[in-house]
Amino acid sequence: MGAFSYLSSAADKAKNGARQLGLPVARFEQFQADTLEPLFIQHAARYAIPFVRRSGVRITRLEAGRVDCRLPLKGNVNHIGTMYAGALFTLAEFPVGPLMLATYGLSRFVPIVTSVRLEFIKACKSDATVTFELPPARANEIESDTLAQGECAFTLTGDIVDAGGDVVARSHADYLMRPRRK
Amino acid sequence: MGAFSYLSSAADKAKNGARQLGLPVARFEQFQADTLEPLFIQHAARYAIPFVRRSGVRITRLEAGRVDCRLPLKGNVNHIGTMYAGALFTLAEFPVGPLMLATYGLSRFVPIVTSVRLEFIKACKSDATVTFELPPARANEIESDTLAQGECAFTLTGDIVDAGGDVVARSHADYLMRPRRK
Repeated sequence: MGAFSYLSSAADKAKNGARQLGLPVARFEQFQADTLEPLFIQHAARYAIPFVRRSGVRITRLEAGRVDCRLPLKGNVNHIGTMYAGALFTLAEFPVGPLMLATYGLSRFVPIVTSVRLEFIKACKSDATVTFELPPARANEIESDTLAQGECAFTLTGDIVDAGGDVVARSHADYLMRPRRK
Repeated sequence: MGAFSYLSSAADKAKNGARQLGLPVARFEQFQADTLEPLFIQHAARYAIPFVRRSGVRITRLEAGRVDCRLPLKGNVNHIGTMYAGALFTLAEFPVGPLMLATYGLSRFVPIVTSVRLEFIKACKSDATVTFELPPARANEIESDTLAQGECAFTLTGDIVDAGGDVVARSHADYLMRPRRK
C-alpha cells in the first residue's frame, strides 16, 4: 500500500521532530491513531483500487470498530435500471479493509478475504448503504489470536440497505488475519 | 432490455418479409436463434450494464449451453497489484444472463440471481477467464419446471482461472428462473 507507507513515514518524521522539540510524542501518536489515520483512510482508500473508485463508493464514517459506506445508484444500474449485483458486491467487500486499518492501525495486520456470500433480497432502486461493526471484545480476540497463532479466521456480516431502510442484500464474508511481514 | 426488444422486433419484420416472399421462415428462425441472437448478445450484452462495460469483461464464446468470458488485469488491480475481488465477482456474475439468453432465446424467461458465493483461492496476477456450462438435459429440466410451476431454482458453479491455468476463485450462484411477463 504505497499511500499508507508514505503516511507512516511522514508520521515517523513528525514524531522525530516532536521528540527533538520535547513535545508530548505519546499524545501525538494517540491523535494520529484515533483521528488522522482514520480520516486519511476514509478519503484515500478508494483511490487505492481503481475499480472501487469507478463505482463511486464513498466511506461516510470511519472509526476503530465501525465503517459506514454509500454507493450511488447513478452509474451502477443494470439492464432494468436497478442497482447492479456487482456494484452491491463492491459496496459489501470494499469497506472491510479500511475498517481493519482504522481498528488496528496501518502497519500491523493484513486481512485476506477468503470468501464472500451475497444474498440478494430485493431490487435496489436507490443509493445503497452498509455498516460493518467490529465490537471491541471481538477486535481484541482477533488481535490476540493473530499474534498467538500467526493467523485468525473471522467472519463479518452486513446488511445493505436502500434509501427507504429496506434490506436489499446481506453479505457474509470470511477473512483471515495475518501479521504484516516486516 | 431495450436493445433486445429492438432486435426481436427487427427479426419479426425480417420474418414477415420472408413470409411475403415465400422464403423458408423456419430456417430463418433457426438461423436467428442459433447464430444471430448469440452473436448479438456476445457483443452487445456488456453495453447493457455500464458497471460491466467499465470492468472490460468480454464474452469470448457464446452458444446455447455455454459461455466463456475474459477479464483483463489492466484497470482491475487492487492495492497490491493483483486482481480486485470485486472484478472477479463481476466476471463470475455477468456471463450467466447472456448464457440464459443464448440458451432460451430473448423473450421467454427471466433469470433472477438470489445469491452468489465466491471463494478466493489464490491471488490472480494475470487476466482471468471463466466458463459456465448448462448441459442440455439440465437446461430442458429448468425449462419444463419453469413452465409447469411458474418458477425454477437452479445453481451454477464456475471456476475462475488465471493465465497459468490455476483456479484463483470458485463461484456458486443460485438463480430463480421465471417466465417473462407478457
